[in-house]
Amino acid sequence: MDSPLSISKTIVEPESFHTLFYPKSIAIIGASKNLIGGSKYYIALKSSRYIPDKGKVYLINPKIDTLFGEPVYPSILDPKVPKPIDLAIIAVSAAIVPKILLECHTNVKFAVIYASGFGEAGNEELDRNLKEVIAQIDTRVIGPNGLGILNPYSKVQIYPDWAPYKGNLSYIAQSGGTMARLYLCLGPLGIGFHNVVSIGNAYDISIAELISYFNKDSRTKTIALYLESVPNGREFMQIARKITPNKPIVLWKGGQSERGITATFSHTGGMAGRYDVWKAMCKQSGIILADHFELFQDLVQTICVRPSLPNGLRVAILVAGGGIGVEFTDTFEKFGLEIPDFDPETVQTLSEIFPHVNTNFKNPVDLGEWGYNPVLFEKALDAVVKDKNVDIVVFVREPERFRIISELLNIPDAQKETIDSLARIAKKTEKPLFCNPSMNKDDTESYKLRHEFQIAMIKAGIPVINYMLNIPKIILQLWNYRKFLKHEIFDKNIT
Amino acid sequence: MDSPLSISKTIVEPESFHTLFYPKSIAIIGASKNLIGGSKYYIALKSSRYIPDKGKVYLINPKIDTLFGEPVYPSILDPKVPKPIDLAIIAVSAAIVPKILLECHTNVKFAVIYASGFGEAGNEELDRNLKEVIAQIDTRVIGPNGLGILNPYSKVQIYPDWAPYKGNLSYIAQSGGTMARLYLCLGPLGIGFHNVVSIGNAYDISIAELISYFNKDSRTKTIALYLESVPNGREFMQIARKITPNKPIVLWKGGQSERGITATFSHTGGMAGRYDVWKAMCKQSGIILADHFELFQDLVQTICVRPSLPNGLRVAILVAGGGIGVEFTDTFEKFGLEIPDFDPETVQTLSEIFPHVNTNFKNPVDLGEWGYNPVLFEKALDAVVKDKNVDIVVFVREPERFRIISELLNIPDAQKETIDSLARIAKKTEKPLFCNPSMNKDDTESYKLRHEFQIAMIKAGIPVINYMLNIPKIILQLWNYRKFLKHEIFDKNIT
Repeated sequence: MDSPLSISKTIVEPESFHTLFYPKSIAIIGASKNLIGGSKYYIALKSSRYIPDKGKVYLINPKIDTLFGEPVYPSILDPKVPKPIDLAIIAVSAAIVPKILLECHTNVKFAVIYASGFGEAGNEELDRNLKEVIAQIDTRVIGPNGLGILNPYSKVQIYPDWAPYKGNLSYIAQSGGTMARLYLCLGPLGIGFHNVVSIGNAYDISIAELISYFNKDSRTKTIALYLESVPNGREFMQIARKITPNKPIVLWKGGQSERGITATFSHTGGMAGRYDVWKAMCKQSGIILADHFELFQDLVQTICVRPSLPNGLRVAILVAGGGIGVEFTDTFEKFGLEIPDFDPETVQTLSEIFPHVNTNFKNPVDLGEWGYNPVLFEKALDAVVKDKNVDIVVFVREPERFRIISELLNIPDAQKETIDSLARIAKKTEKPLFCNPSMNKDDTESYKLRHEFQIAMIKAGIPVINYMLNIPKIILQLWNYRKFLKHEIFDKNIT
Repeated sequence: MDSPLSISKTIVEPESFHTLFYPKSIAIIGASKNLIGGSKYYIALKSSRYIPDKGKVYLINPKIDTLFGEPVYPSILDPKVPKPIDLAIIAVSAAIVPKILLECHTNVKFAVIYASGFGEAGNEELDRNLKEVIAQIDTRVIGPNGLGILNPYSKVQIYPDWAPYKGNLSYIAQSGGTMARLYLCLGPLGIGFHNVVSIGNAYDISIAELISYFNKDSRTKTIALYLESVPNGREFMQIARKITPNKPIVLWKGGQSERGITATFSHTGGMAGRYDVWKAMCKQSGIILADHFELFQDLVQTICVRPSLPNGLRVAILVAGGGIGVEFTDTFEKFGLEIPDFDPETVQTLSEIFPHVNTNFKNPVDLGEWGYNPVLFEKALDAVVKDKNVDIVVFVREPERFRIISELLNIPDAQKETIDSLARIAKKTEKPLFCNPSMNKDDTESYKLRHEFQIAMIKAGIPVINYMLNIPKIILQLWNYRKFLKHEIFDKNIT
């Protein structure tokens, strides 16, 4: 999987990447009156308060003198620009990128090449030229064809309207759109990020170098990756294998099918390797693997919120309603999960807690409306979680139903009480727990209820998986990861 | 698949079911001060304005005299209750249902048995007794263990807060919860219903009888079914096969796995047949099959909004962004769909319309930000739709992006213009079209944008499939259906 085109710069000491994510000075080369290109970064850094809280920004453009009331310098070499600059964002047309990069040598520690139009666009001579220059200079480079760096702690930003979702997830994406999607889909739920990189074609700084840095970085607890082509696939896997016993890596690999692999070339200029090889290598390296965005998002959510690994594949299902119990059972069994009989003591406990009308105490358990009583639900869940025949618990709580229950039972806030009790159970057990909110109505009011419920559940330490079909897929990935950590990866062949 | 327990009443002339869905009088047997049971129906019928617009309601309970300011009669036999009553809702405890039913004989045309607690709860003697009574009386029965009838046109309602989503979909569900979910998930999107039945254990009026009626009913254009166990499976399939050439039937079959089949018994008292047999029979009968709720919902949406069947499995993909093009290609190819090369003329047209920066005119097409220009997108889609190598077109439009484009291009409403032009294209072509909105941000404001966009697209005749993974599954079901209609079902084995 090594690409003949890869640049063999010495891997820097991982610690030195700190400057990339916490730069004290940023030069924007190619800032102009056009607000789409380099100036976008200036507006973002102003909006995030990188300026003035965290560092100084230098605008570079030989054609103008001032912009946004700031001086504009003709080049990075201008004596008024202090040296070395920590980070330069190169937003000029592809053809002059090599020249600009040569000027960065010794004067700039890290550069992001935002420009595209190299190998991925079929411009092979320019591409060769760029790679030669990168190999000559001391400056370490992100890109080309990448959006660069985002870090809510250091306030380095790419878009002016993005909130700083702070957390412990570090994330590299070989697609700006996919970088954005994960950040904006998980952030509002309360899952925050540390170092985020839109890496593009990744001609210099490699995925392997960055994940090595993330491994040593104390703020990073989980690593998420969207990759298309990895020039040094073997190196990447070797390094990943050393990291996964320490920090989980969730990877979505784009370019799985024949035509998908071709499409990655137009996108980031590299050829993806065969997907079955990737799958096998991920398994051996303990990498948690997704094959599309929504699953990727739910896997990352699960690992960030509740990184518990199952001791087996026996799943307890608790719902309100017969149809949905049938649905979950059908789906989970199809994925090879077991829906076991409970210990008789559990069934006994449930039948003592609940009326025997519109309820079913066998797995899948149907607690009907009664289960929306927070006190009863806590007891029921506690009994099921403790059952020695159960490895994983999946339950449905529909946020649309709490309001009615609050009124009927005269409880000020049945949802809050339920979530508080779930938080207690989540702390007591090490078993994986999943909640599904089973959308009852597709309108804004119901979405709002589900969304607020999910945020509160995540705070309570329980992942909420909106699309039921993802739950068994997540469980199987957690199971693979556990096997890897226990060195049992070869004894069972589940993917 | 015939059950020895099935009741062999003569199938009534389908026309006579009109009274069930358009009753002029409704008796609620078991209406009480408890607002959960029979009285729920009264409140719903009042709220929907069945009373006073459509018919008269008679409350029956020997223990009280008045309720909601209305007189309450001791029994259906009371001389003040006119005979025959079109529909009786029996909301009394299971034990006295047989006695009540005997009173309904000749006095009530149709009855809904809301009560549960028969075979599905293990009460076998009561169950036998109920079946004997049903076989003796003239009254035709829905249930037991079902919520009954809903019809937005006749204003027959079950829940007071449900809007009357009027349309051409008739729907039978063997689960009250699942009945509710489809109604409340599709209704707000603009997909309306005609006759809706929560049929429960279906001891008398059968699914087969009801779908025969739907077939002759001119307002019904599509039939949706959630079934667990069908006592007369063979009869059902024979009848379905006669309907599907005329009206599409979309079926979600609960009880697919071993434990799922057991769970259906606790739910609706019947044993589901083997799922592989069901799958094969559905294929032979031209039934469009779903295996879980979200897919069921998307299949019904597609069939209601755009019942076009593909002439082949060659899919064109149009997106904005390289990563998502790779994702769709990967996923579709995995399901056996083809992502063909376009006719050179199409590529030529696209390359004349769009700049060659951050765009890709090969399939999957990446139009970048440029594609959000409504005029350019219409031209592009038109060229792709016309391409002779393309059978199906799937495109991504992210409603979050229209606002910025409107500002940049100085168009009052880029989204509306895009949807208007898509409506024109949807009318011109018979090829299946699918839109995916590719959620960019998970918060209420973005949900609202997506939701309003979906409603407008549906009005324009294009289904919006939010979960990308469902698109290839829908395409394969449409393909099977087309094969059935063309009598080609045995030449290719795609499920």
